[in-house]
Amino acid sequence: MKNKAITSKNVDFAKWYTDVVMASHLASYSNVKGCIAIEPNGYAIWEKMQSILDKKFKNTGHSNVYMPVLIPENLLNKEGELVNGFAPEVAWVTKGGEKELEERMCIRPTSETLFSDYYSNVVKSYRDLPKKYNQWCNVLRWEKETRPFLRSREFLWQEGHTVHETKEEAEQETKQMLDIYLDFFKNYLAIPAIVGRKTEKEKFAGAEYTLTIEALMYNGVALQSGTSHYFGQKFSKAYDIKFVDRENKQQYAYQTSWGVTTRMIGALIMVHSDDNGLVLPPKIAPCQVSIIPIGKDEEIINYAKEIQNTLDKNEISNKIDSSEKSPGFKFAEAEVNGIPIRIELGKRDLENHQITLVRRDTREKITISSNDNIVEKIQELLEDIQNNLYNRALKRRNEMTYTATTLKEMDEIITNHPGFIKAMWCGCVECENKIKEIKGIKSRCIPFKEEQEHISDVCVCCGKPAKKMVIWGIQY
Amino acid sequence: MKNKAITSKNVDFAKWYTDVVMASHLASYSNVKGCIAIEPNGYAIWEKMQSILDKKFKNTGHSNVYMPVLIPENLLNKEGELVNGFAPEVAWVTKGGEKELEERMCIRPTSETLFSDYYSNVVKSYRDLPKKYNQWCNVLRWEKETRPFLRSREFLWQEGHTVHETKEEAEQETKQMLDIYLDFFKNYLAIPAIVGRKTEKEKFAGAEYTLTIEALMYNGVALQSGTSHYFGQKFSKAYDIKFVDRENKQQYAYQTSWGVTTRMIGALIMVHSDDNGLVLPPKIAPCQVSIIPIGKDEEIINYAKEIQNTLDKNEISNKIDSSEKSPGFKFAEAEVNGIPIRIELGKRDLENHQITLVRRDTREKITISSNDNIVEKIQELLEDIQNNLYNRALKRRNEMTYTATTLKEMDEIITNHPGFIKAMWCGCVECENKIKEIKGIKSRCIPFKEEQEHISDVCVCCGKPAKKMVIWGIQY
Repeated sequence: MKNKAITSKNVDFAKWYTDVVMASHLASYSNVKGCIAIEPNGYAIWEKMQSILDKKFKNTGHSNVYMPVLIPENLLNKEGELVNGFAPEVAWVTKGGEKELEERMCIRPTSETLFSDYYSNVVKSYRDLPKKYNQWCNVLRWEKETRPFLRSREFLWQEGHTVHETKEEAEQETKQMLDIYLDFFKNYLAIPAIVGRKTEKEKFAGAEYTLTIEALMYNGVALQSGTSHYFGQKFSKAYDIKFVDRENKQQYAYQTSWGVTTRMIGALIMVHSDDNGLVLPPKIAPCQVSIIPIGKDEEIINYAKEIQNTLDKNEISNKIDSSEKSPGFKFAEAEVNGIPIRIELGKRDLENHQITLVRRDTREKITISSNDNIVEKIQELLEDIQNNLYNRALKRRNEMTYTATTLKEMDEIITNHPGFIKAMWCGCVECENKIKEIKGIKSRCIPFKEEQEHISDVCVCCGKPAKKMVIWGIQY
Repeated sequence: MKNKAITSKNVDFAKWYTDVVMASHLASYSNVKGCIAIEPNGYAIWEKMQSILDKKFKNTGHSNVYMPVLIPENLLNKEGELVNGFAPEVAWVTKGGEKELEERMCIRPTSETLFSDYYSNVVKSYRDLPKKYNQWCNVLRWEKETRPFLRSREFLWQEGHTVHETKEEAEQETKQMLDIYLDFFKNYLAIPAIVGRKTEKEKFAGAEYTLTIEALMYNGVALQSGTSHYFGQKFSKAYDIKFVDRENKQQYAYQTSWGVTTRMIGALIMVHSDDNGLVLPPKIAPCQVSIIPIGKDEEIINYAKEIQNTLDKNEISNKIDSSEKSPGFKFAEAEVNGIPIRIELGKRDLENHQITLVRRDTREKITISSNDNIVEKIQELLEDIQNNLYNRALKRRNEMTYTATTLKEMDEIITNHPGFIKAMWCGCVECENKIKEIKGIKSRCIPFKEEQEHISDVCVCCGKPAKKMVIWGIQY
């Protein structure tokens, strides 16, 4: 049996995606073009992501702050590359109250500008360093084509902005934050992401270099899922962030920034979910167990409450669905909402001293005795679901990762069975541009040393000597 | 000894206020006019407020969501009173990317518009009700005069928006949320607030009525600190939020909204703090205990860590200040930052088997034996500080609450020793306007039945029969 509100993912992947978003009530379209209303089910996932990441940020010495949402044009203009990168896609406020503004301001597309301006005021000495700040906020980019969570004009994110005394420390920070993202993807989102450095062409406007985390969606399209930028002294020179160093000399500071967004919710859908709706890894699911009493028998209701108490005590998030709806309807709802385990509690279960568990990932029914240690069984099952989702995604990603030594091979792969393509590259942007002509293939990242492979001696495009393997793919 | 960076509050209260904000690093001015940068110390208080309130909201059945930051003009225009109330103070986006917009949009000053538009799409039947949603977000109002936290163009808040089947349920919700705010003020912020209904003149644009929570600042000026609005069917008629009721008839839904803001941080300063900086009630303090080792003796550092472990286990938030600064500097810093208790750990303390505690509210030094149960002592002390701050504020508020039966009396009170003034009112706006001529006195609220007092038979202004006592005052 299949959820009728959802198009099959193998029939029309794009339609399947929005069907899942709507059917599982993650978000709905709003009357503000290109913006969505994030509904309780979607926002609860975001809150869970926030709470996990926020702890990791604080444990590594970061503090949260809040900078203004508006950026005056003159401030934005101070760093040339950033302006050129973002000016075409910002929203401009030109009127405040009933008066035309003397200087227009844009709604932040990202906050390097305001953080740098702030740091230029508060950083005076090496004793003030490092400053490691983060903010959780909304940003706005005037996108033309939008899709819920993947690309929308307004989105929610966190943006970390740090200032350091030395190049080494700033570079370490850049890498550390990428590692935190990678760990989060692997151990919470159950997504086997790849990481590496962006090419010059694909890096963030204004960065010395950009590290990226990239995930492969079910349909073989890549999703840039988070970035960590090393700025060197570019912004500190543009915004005059100077400090007196240990030798009593004036120095420009070294900076980084890094961020992940509500786009990760889109990744969860496109990596794990199926034709019956959302599938959530237990460690990111706002509700891990749905307890569904069948019928209104007092004994059953009491048993449901007893189970709830036990789960609560063991910090397994859960809810009892005691609404007026039919059991079948409740089962389907728990399923479409991606709740990892549902417990079906009927009269027969009670009589036979058993409990029926249904796992969302495989839809398998498991009957356990009510004499079993329920908590232990459920904890094991949650862990098994978490691992299964990761392993399934890893297997798929590996199967969909190809190597190519010619442009023709790249074309064939992307046309017939898109995925990640490993191919050697000479390092010049002309080849990158030429490769892009093949259905928009872009370099996803240059893997770090330890992940580099030697696929051939020469660039897949120009045939000149190549030293680096690059991972390529089409993207959202 | 007094903190030199802070003007005395009895010398220049306004200057004292901003000095405290800056000296305790709650926020700093930004280069965006009328907007502040909320720094780690300030944002941590906001996070603490969020976590406490968010739990209370969720425990009463509310879910968090996120609506767009932009409101198209035609949507804003649907409810006439709301538009008139807010149109003069919104920021308008007129350009997106490189194109003039066909229809301008404003940055949300509040989100009744977008919630109502959303509800009109998703509410179809009484089975869909109630919907009790809340969002934590930024809003923008183009204020002319601004002050950190108290009034700034952009501020952070939560806005709850609910839809109900019946008038009774919506009115209950309106009152319930006010009660949650009142409890939060009393038991966490240690602020004895007053509550009641706003007059027609002072209510929120578009509401049937507004309930308010008002606090009295140290200088006798009132601060409107939170509001809860009952909308009846005003918005549901304007935005067409209709549902099929239990009798199968079409009905308009009943709505509420309610919110509190980062302004509460301003209230904490102006109610509790002193010439040495911030004073925070322990229940809202992000860090409750600062452990300051004097000197670098290994024994002392180890003892500090031991104490930290014990406090951590008992969920008493704390930090060790092991920076390079001098002990005196560290003491002053813990003080200016409002940390409720600091522990001074010196060699002599160690030798005498004692620990020195200093409470922030009274600055009193307390020596306890290291054989005492430290956790118990500190817990008691935290509770005592919390109670002392509340009682001190209550006493002051009572002393600064006056009664008046003539306009002359009102004038004398406000001129010589401002505070809350209880006076009878006939209910007509002409009298309210006339009273406002006295140095801007406004009605703060009409207390609920159980708090009504009979001060005289007639209106303080026109002398006609009066039934209600109103609390009046000047405001921020």
